[in-house]
Amino acid sequence: MILVRRELGDVLRNLRLQQGQTLRQVASRASVALGYLSEVERGQKEASSEILYAVAEALDVPMSTILADVSERVGRLEGIMPIPDTVPAEFLSDFATK
Amino acid sequence: MILVRRELGDVLRNLRLQQGQTLRQVASRASVALGYLSEVERGQKEASSEILYAVAEALDVPMSTILADVSERVGRLEGIMPIPDTVPAEFLSDFATK
Repeated sequence: MILVRRELGDVLRNLRLQQGQTLRQVASRASVALGYLSEVERGQKEASSEILYAVAEALDVPMSTILADVSERVGRLEGIMPIPDTVPAEFLSDFATK
Repeated sequence: MILVRRELGDVLRNLRLQQGQTLRQVASRASVALGYLSEVERGQKEASSEILYAVAEALDVPMSTILADVSERVGRLEGIMPIPDTVPAEFLSDFATK
């Protein structure tokens, strides 16, 4: 079974690590317990809507971006290819702007 | 505060209504309590990952599609324009395939 909380946890952890923030820093900025955030990142606890909002703020990333990442990861697990938002390089020569 | 559960509830209800299914039918197919599904649709309860999986199955809609819809709705609330997955009609004349 594909579990959204696992993919969400990975997305949140990846974003945090990209920013070089520690669990403690994000937990503190989001006013959530460090142990809880750690469990969310590991996909062991569901993040409530309020927690997701606070963590997105702490990461300074729009929730819509986080959800789009989760959607893409879930889609890959479902075997659905994402629609690219730019023309892939190998097809670029098929397009010419006037 | 933008709450994901409200947007998710709207997306799930819209999908169900588009299919002409009743709450009872979806709850039964997903093996979730009718009252719980009703609260999820009204954005009053968080859907666990397991419930979301079961409801998506009952609606026969990929979870990634549901999450993409939620992301787009949240993005609109955040004031972020979604990236169109096709060229909007008004810009079509700017593109020519060779």
